[in-house]
This record gives sequence, C-alpha cells and structure tokens, in this order.
Amino acid sequence: MPNSTHPLRRPEIGAETRLIPVLGDPIAQVRAPALMNGLLAERGVDTVVIPVHARAENLDSVVRGLQAIENVRGLLITVPHKIDILRHAAVHSPAAALAGSANALRREPDGSWHAANFDGAGFVAGLVAHGFSPAGRQVAVIGAGGAGSAVSAALLDAEASRLTVYDRDGDRMIAIVDRLGSRWPGRVEAGAGLGAADIVINATPLGLGPTDELPFDPACLRPGALVADIVMRPRRTRLLRLAETLGHPVHYGEPMLTHQVELYCAYFGLAAEELRA
Amino acid sequence: MPNSTHPLRRPEIGAETRLIPVLGDPIAQVRAPALMNGLLAERGVDTVVIPVHARAENLDSVVRGLQAIENVRGLLITVPHKIDILRHAAVHSPAAALAGSANALRREPDGSWHAANFDGAGFVAGLVAHGFSPAGRQVAVIGAGGAGSAVSAALLDAEASRLTVYDRDGDRMIAIVDRLGSRWPGRVEAGAGLGAADIVINATPLGLGPTDELPFDPACLRPGALVADIVMRPRRTRLLRLAETLGHPVHYGEPMLTHQVELYCAYFGLAAEELRA
Repeated sequence: MPNSTHPLRRPEIGAETRLIPVLGDPIAQVRAPALMNGLLAERGVDTVVIPVHARAENLDSVVRGLQAIENVRGLLITVPHKIDILRHAAVHSPAAALAGSANALRREPDGSWHAANFDGAGFVAGLVAHGFSPAGRQVAVIGAGGAGSAVSAALLDAEASRLTVYDRDGDRMIAIVDRLGSRWPGRVEAGAGLGAADIVINATPLGLGPTDELPFDPACLRPGALVADIVMRPRRTRLLRLAETLGHPVHYGEPMLTHQVELYCAYFGLAAEELRA
Repeated sequence: MPNSTHPLRRPEIGAETRLIPVLGDPIAQVRAPALMNGLLAERGVDTVVIPVHARAENLDSVVRGLQAIENVRGLLITVPHKIDILRHAAVHSPAAALAGSANALRREPDGSWHAANFDGAGFVAGLVAHGFSPAGRQVAVIGAGGAGSAVSAALLDAEASRLTVYDRDGDRMIAIVDRLGSRWPGRVEAGAGLGAADIVINATPLGLGPTDELPFDPACLRPGALVADIVMRPRRTRLLRLAETLGHPVHYGEPMLTHQVELYCAYFGLAAEELRA
C-alpha cells in the first residue's frame, strides 16, 4: 500500500518480482533503471529494471540466458547491441524494421519474442516538447548505427523536408540511406550535410568517454543551427559545450529517453494492474 | 546517505548496481531477496538479490548467460538446481564436494567460478540457536538431494552420533551414504531410521505444494522426537502441523536460511565497503 510518509515508493524485490534487464556496454551511463523503477514502484507494479553489462562477444549467450528465465518479461537494449539484438526476435515492429535496430524486446503470450524501437519516436517527441519541430526543416544525422537509423526514420516520418545521414562506415551509411529512401523517396541523402542543416544530431556514442573525439566540428555549421546529442551522460557533452560557445542552441540527450518511458510502459503492459497485497 | 526518516533503506537500482540472481523452480518461495536486500541497502552495498525462475531444462543456458554478465557477482541456488549447478564451477568448496551440491557460486578474480554450500552450516546453526544441538543425537534425514546431502554432512561434522539418510532414489541414497561414510566411518547408514531417531528432518521439497504428499509419516516417530523441515513456505508445512498435533517439538525451515545470510555476505564480500555517493 502507498505510504504517505514515503512520497516515492522505491522498488522492493520479492520472490515474484518480474525483471526487465537493460543490456549495454558500457553500462554505467544507462538511465532506464533510475527513470523507470520509481515510476513502477509508485504504480504498484512488481517489476524492476536491472542493469546488465553485456560485452558484444557475450551478447548471444546473455540474451539466450535471459530469454530462458520465466520471470523476465522483456529486455531494453542500448549501445552497442541495438542492431545485433534483432536476431533474437522473431517479429520486428515497423519502426524496428525500418531502422534496422531495436531497443526493446518483449515476450509474447505464445513465448516468442517481438522487437520494437522507440528511440526515434522518443527523440522526436523530446525535440518537439522543447520547441524544435523538425517539420519542414533540413536535418543532418551523424551516425547510422541503431540509434541514428531510428532517429532518421522518425524525423522523416515527422516531415523533415530533407535528411542527410553520415557514418564513417560507408556501407552502413549507404544501406540506411537506401532503406529510408525507398520509404521516403527524394528526401534522404548520404553525407554530412553540415553546412546547410537547420538541425544537426550526434547519433554516435562519441562523447560518452571523456577523451572521445568530436563526432563532427560545430564550426562547420550555419549560424543558428540547433545541435542535438543523443549521449545522455555527461549531460553537457564536449560537443554541446563547444556548440554553445559558438552561439548555437543545443538539445540534450535525456529527453529522448524520458519521452520513451511511457512508450516502454505501454509496450510491456506496465500499467497499475498488478497491485501488491 | 542514510535518511533518518527512512529507518530501513530499500534497494535503489542504478546503472552500476551489481546483481546476485537466485535461481530456482518454483521461485515464489525464495526468501533470499527479502532477507538480503534490506540488509545490503542498510550497509550501503550497491548490490541486489533478484529472483530468477529457471526451469531444469533451461538451467545450463540461464547459468551460461548469467555468468557472461559483467555485473553479476555471484549466484544463489535453490531447488531443484543444487546438484546440477556444480558443473558450472571449476572449484568446489569442501562442503560442496562432500554434499555433492552447492547453493552459492561466486566469480573469482581470475574470472573462474567457485561453488560453495552453506545449507548444512546454516541448518545446524539454526538448530543450535533454537536449543536443539545434534551432538550425541541420532538423526534421520529424509531426502538425499542437494539440501539433504549438505545438511547430513554438517550434522556429522557437528557430532551427531548416528545418521540415517533416506531417498526414494536408491542410487542417490547409496551414493551419499558411501561418500559420508568414507569421511565419517561407522556413523552413517542408508534407510529411514524413523523409529530410533531423536531428530527427523524433511530435506525434500515435499510440502512446498499444497497437495504434496507427506515426506514421511510422523506417527512412526518415538515420543519427543524433534521434527524439522527445510521447506520455508508455507512456514507451517502439513508435516509440521501434523507433528505438532502428535505432540512433537518442531523446527521450521526459515532458520536454515536466516543463519546463512551472514555466511553469504562474507562469501560474496558484501561488507559495507561500497558506500554510495
């Protein structure tokens, strides 16, 4: 029962608690446990989000193990596993298929696994909530990995007029541009496109590490261009600090996740239906 | 920081929380999460014990997956996996080797896995704390699985004068009697030995389920014999209720676990050295 002296119920873990592991490498930056566990406790849902540090070479074995646990109700997936995780789901949502990546998997009633991707919808919702609608804008996305692909698809879906996608891996860059271009013909191009963009987004993990190089040089941008970062920790990445110094408006990484929390809850069925005794 | 308005710190799960899964089938009866998480939170140790419902046919895949997770610091093992888990550890403690079963595994600094068994030490410590020393007594153990083997070894180590071990699986019964007999010659025998025992212990899982048959008939016992059960939930099993009705003193399952909590903490290195910021 909610206790009025404890405004925020913290998670209690009992024998029947169900689990949603969040898989990443590194793991120290993941925000999903902190963001979701307080909410789930408040709602009386006996499920906890737990951090799982899985190296790429162990991903298959970790996922097979977690999927074989009866009280695992789903998985959340972060860097660098969003693409490789697709092979562990029989069915992919339209957003996951278009992005070629997933950040959430759930166990279906028949025991099979379904993959979805809320990165793009979360990113765009956060951008709009902060007053930066992509509709009619020219957007550059740097990084065509799992998150970059998802964000690119959602930006086109949200009526960005033109999108450039850049990745150091040329094959990966061409593959995502081809896939997006067949869905939204004439609006997607490979390349950095920095000089002409209204909105430029770092969708690489560069910035997580204190000595990481910059994903791109904000000195190349036109005045007034918005610089957005999907890296959440540190909040003010080196890229965003430099962009601010140069007079650009900036958009932090966190809204992409906070705007996904309700999407995750709906996907996993985490309503308040499982009240504790 | 401890907050004086919250006398018991509940576990907070963040990105760097380390995990100790407890594996069983069924899982609803496990007490380790409830017993240990409050204690760990009080001590400021950023580790949580989580329930993992693993069916026997999935055990190997679940364990391989959990052992491949960087922030899993160890495993706790309960019914029915205490024997099969041994193949997932390179080194077995003396108690685990003697019992042929383990209830705790930890990751060693070199990345290998070590198995230990605290069931026997915990059971005997609980028995003694409740005023029932096995020293010089005749004891009957029903069930030669993981817990029964561990309890049997610890009772002999605690100077029980004579021990009988019974199991429906004759091969399993003979194997444990031979192993214990070679360590404590002349004090161990196969068979139920109910009529002569001072202490009779149910070390089978019978009693977990509401419709389970009795592990043995307490009507066969001599007056005054102590009836102990390792089943923890329900606390008062059908066996213990019937034994009480017949006038026998009884010993519940919970002390075996509660007296293991500090043994687990020492084994996993869960002292208060990891204070949260």
